[in-house]
Amino acid sequence: MSRPIIEVCLTPALLDLYPVKNKIVVVIDVLRATSTIGVALDHGANAIIPVGSIEECLKYQDEPDHLLAGERGGHKVEGFKYGNSPFEYMNGVVENKTLVLTTTNGTRSIESSREADCVIAGSFLNLDVLCDYLKQQKKDILLLCAGWKNRVNMEDTLFAGAVLSQLWKRFESDCDSSLGARQLYEHHNGDLMGAMQYASHFRRLSNQGIMEDIEYCLTPNQINVIPVLEDNKLVRLNELAL
Amino acid sequence: MSRPIIEVCLTPALLDLYPVKNKIVVVIDVLRATSTIGVALDHGANAIIPVGSIEECLKYQDEPDHLLAGERGGHKVEGFKYGNSPFEYMNGVVENKTLVLTTTNGTRSIESSREADCVIAGSFLNLDVLCDYLKQQKKDILLLCAGWKNRVNMEDTLFAGAVLSQLWKRFESDCDSSLGARQLYEHHNGDLMGAMQYASHFRRLSNQGIMEDIEYCLTPNQINVIPVLEDNKLVRLNELAL
Repeated sequence: MSRPIIEVCLTPALLDLYPVKNKIVVVIDVLRATSTIGVALDHGANAIIPVGSIEECLKYQDEPDHLLAGERGGHKVEGFKYGNSPFEYMNGVVENKTLVLTTTNGTRSIESSREADCVIAGSFLNLDVLCDYLKQQKKDILLLCAGWKNRVNMEDTLFAGAVLSQLWKRFESDCDSSLGARQLYEHHNGDLMGAMQYASHFRRLSNQGIMEDIEYCLTPNQINVIPVLEDNKLVRLNELAL
Repeated sequence: MSRPIIEVCLTPALLDLYPVKNKIVVVIDVLRATSTIGVALDHGANAIIPVGSIEECLKYQDEPDHLLAGERGGHKVEGFKYGNSPFEYMNGVVENKTLVLTTTNGTRSIESSREADCVIAGSFLNLDVLCDYLKQQKKDILLLCAGWKNRVNMEDTLFAGAVLSQLWKRFESDCDSSLGARQLYEHHNGDLMGAMQYASHFRRLSNQGIMEDIEYCLTPNQINVIPVLEDNKLVRLNELAL
């Protein structure tokens, strides 16, 4: 039996080259949407509704038990109580609540993957549990990096490389993006903060004083949750499947 | 005085994100268009006319001293006497001739950079002479990888990394593609054949029995020519400028 295929789409601007049908799509927005989504579900949120625009987010403002959250260009959306930092969701605030989240890059990538068989959210925080799950599925996989305004970014590429480093021997890949991402990850040999030192997003976010967010989001295996898209919501993947 | 900017566009599909106006664009198609273009000029060709289609190439078939050459999907175009191998142009055949060349990826990238201030062709074969030239110009630079059918490929990314490895301290870059390409190149520490071992194009081309082409095209500093676009032709950059 031939092995399933794994590929990396380095930015949503290249998604036309990678059909998502019949695949598992892993959406990756390490700084910070998919990290924060994982943390919110790990801390008791019922669901996350990813929306593409602030306007769409505001449609939920009168729904009970819905929290509106959003970020644009790395900053909390004006008038929103919650932003895109994982630390905002660790104090019980999301327990049994639904988070309606819009971000610059990550939530849009989730939206554009809806035709896939299955859309899940990956980040360093759930690296191993995600890889273990993917190994069991024996299905074709697309790692979709959210990037930064359609450009390639370092942190999402490194995470794709981390996944590939665990999976590549079990999958086929005829995609140099996969090879490059894996070699780049292996080049840094686990020193993710070092790898990010010259990265554009690192400089952008560290100027905003959120170094703590960056360090946390680059730390593997902090949560045991895999967010999966069901209808229009991200929920915890059924534990039985894990 | 602020330093000029250097960026990498990993595939022509992302060119919309990188305006070329007022920049030097270095088109990169290591296997094999920009390697072959350099070799043909180094072996006495008057000029290379890069054309996007086979039909356009055929318009030149009755012109005196014009040789038609082309490749599609790595294979010589049926009915064309010349293909895309640098070795075809080392035996005097192009001396004082004009080569009309169409390739799958490289010539199209040249076509789409016409609005730049200056378009030059880069390959490992002219690595150092190219970098020395770029250092002197003090202008913004875009390294445009031709890729493979709009996907990222390993060899063009590695060459962009090789250029960045020489230039990055003299330029500004807020582009993670540049950082990733440079780190990937440095990871392989000069072992380009090793770096290419799992690459898609390597497998594609080595199946066609052109391993010799690949080895040659990955060898730095074999020629002293920088091809530059003047009107619709690539010619030798005036030696005075070198």
